[in-house]
Amino acid sequence: MTHASVDTAVAAVDIGGTKTAAALVAASGEVLARASAPTPGRDGPDAVLTTAAGLVQRLRAGSAATTVASLGVGSAGVVDAATGRVLSATDVLSGWAGTDLRGELGELLGMPVVVVNDVHAHALGESVRGAGAGHETVLFVAVGTGIGASFVVGGRVLAGAHSVAGHAGHQPSPYAAKLPCTCGGRGHLEAIASGPGLVAEYHRRGGALVPDLREVSALAAQGDPVAAEVVVLGGAAVGSALGGLANVLDPHAVVVGGGVTALGETWWSALREAFRADALPVLADVPVLESTLGADAPLVGAAGLAWELVA
Amino acid sequence: MTHASVDTAVAAVDIGGTKTAAALVAASGEVLARASAPTPGRDGPDAVLTTAAGLVQRLRAGSAATTVASLGVGSAGVVDAATGRVLSATDVLSGWAGTDLRGELGELLGMPVVVVNDVHAHALGESVRGAGAGHETVLFVAVGTGIGASFVVGGRVLAGAHSVAGHAGHQPSPYAAKLPCTCGGRGHLEAIASGPGLVAEYHRRGGALVPDLREVSALAAQGDPVAAEVVVLGGAAVGSALGGLANVLDPHAVVVGGGVTALGETWWSALREAFRADALPVLADVPVLESTLGADAPLVGAAGLAWELVA
Repeated sequence: MTHASVDTAVAAVDIGGTKTAAALVAASGEVLARASAPTPGRDGPDAVLTTAAGLVQRLRAGSAATTVASLGVGSAGVVDAATGRVLSATDVLSGWAGTDLRGELGELLGMPVVVVNDVHAHALGESVRGAGAGHETVLFVAVGTGIGASFVVGGRVLAGAHSVAGHAGHQPSPYAAKLPCTCGGRGHLEAIASGPGLVAEYHRRGGALVPDLREVSALAAQGDPVAAEVVVLGGAAVGSALGGLANVLDPHAVVVGGGVTALGETWWSALREAFRADALPVLADVPVLESTLGADAPLVGAAGLAWELVA
Repeated sequence: MTHASVDTAVAAVDIGGTKTAAALVAASGEVLARASAPTPGRDGPDAVLTTAAGLVQRLRAGSAATTVASLGVGSAGVVDAATGRVLSATDVLSGWAGTDLRGELGELLGMPVVVVNDVHAHALGESVRGAGAGHETVLFVAVGTGIGASFVVGGRVLAGAHSVAGHAGHQPSPYAAKLPCTCGGRGHLEAIASGPGLVAEYHRRGGALVPDLREVSALAAQGDPVAAEVVVLGGAAVGSALGGLANVLDPHAVVVGGGVTALGETWWSALREAFRADALPVLADVPVLESTLGADAPLVGAAGLAWELVA
């Protein structure tokens, strides 16, 4: 076994709306073992917690020589990191609001537990161990079904007064005109530049009704000019917003992840060009980096917090 | 004398492009004495430093019973707070870049000196001692000739990797279309919602060429419909941007100051309405407060840092 020399590890769990992932993670940030299962979101919090704890137990059983010292959890919903409770959540996880994640998982597993929002866990992973490693402050943005950003200062996410900091998708965007947004507002970045936003924009511009962004991407690659326009628009809208945010936060580095980055080089070029156009001249060379940890990022971020519990 | 009981005070200096202000400030934040002089910006850094030091000496001579323990400086330009040096500045202060403010004023006055950017000093004053007092995190925005914002966390301004954090005026704004901005970019908030931006917008909408925003304000008060539109536009553009920033930063309070706030209740109503429209529902009730310290704010903020030198 490659990891036979690791005596102690921490566990990490990433509870998403559709999937729950778990891992054992070394102090180096290396992922030693992984497991995952569908999240039984409609069956209530107890079912979700049992699934999460079961994954950790399975990993622990499979690594009998390794002591699992603590657990870090990244969870969907708004989480109060100070108490480890879910403050609010969407209907994807029914009854999730109010769940005492720290207390209940601690009881089920008999180890200390730390809980943060999954987007914050993702940001911590990429900022501290991934593409942002070595940068004192990192603006991390995830562009996917939604758009979130976290400002990571000295290895800490600024979580905000209501634990909702980082909703960068809900900034007014000149690219979004008055499009309705999932939050109830209008003209927000997420309404145009998220995955669903770009699919809808392709259709508004006369393209076919396609099922997902992958299809728009494939059409752009095949020379569909409307699809190509939409890919450029998406990158530019994100880059412009990030340039404006960099002017406010002046981060050492910007890291971009999330499923929409799979649009590839055309999207990235548009993003970088728009970033430089909107950033102050002194910030034009701030590194804009592609995330490197992929789906492991939230697990690695949550594990970093778990290590702090036993340090 | 009201302040005869104060044995020790600190000095504060606010070096602006046209005026240099100085004060003695008690540990409570109370301003004990004030002095000011035109900034001899075209005469080079030595003349500016001599003027600033002269104001402090005059105040010290006038309060012989009070020991002046240290000096806090807020200066125009980009300041490296760690070294007390000016990193860059506009031509208003000729030769200002590179000036060792901390070293030179320390030598001239024989006391410990701390130096920050004047916008950061302003934000600290209002956030810690003014309208934001008691709030753990404050988003402070100054709307005047330019638009700046600072995020104050636990009494510290996040200054950024290049000490330029807070350039909130250089965020893309749906209200600004593609208007050219002072930074070289286009479509930024400052191009539409700053004092000069609103004056220009009044003219673009068919209003007369007026010398300043006070005139637009007076015309709006007299029933000029175009002037009234512009006042509403200005408040809405700022409020919308602040709502978007609140979604990213989730501050405990927002404080708004600067000369443009003199536009009064119409401007404020438009600002608050746009803030609530763009902020997430959970943030709609974040207090949006009017600054209270006026021109004293940068002095009080710089003094707070000076007190830390002798604490």
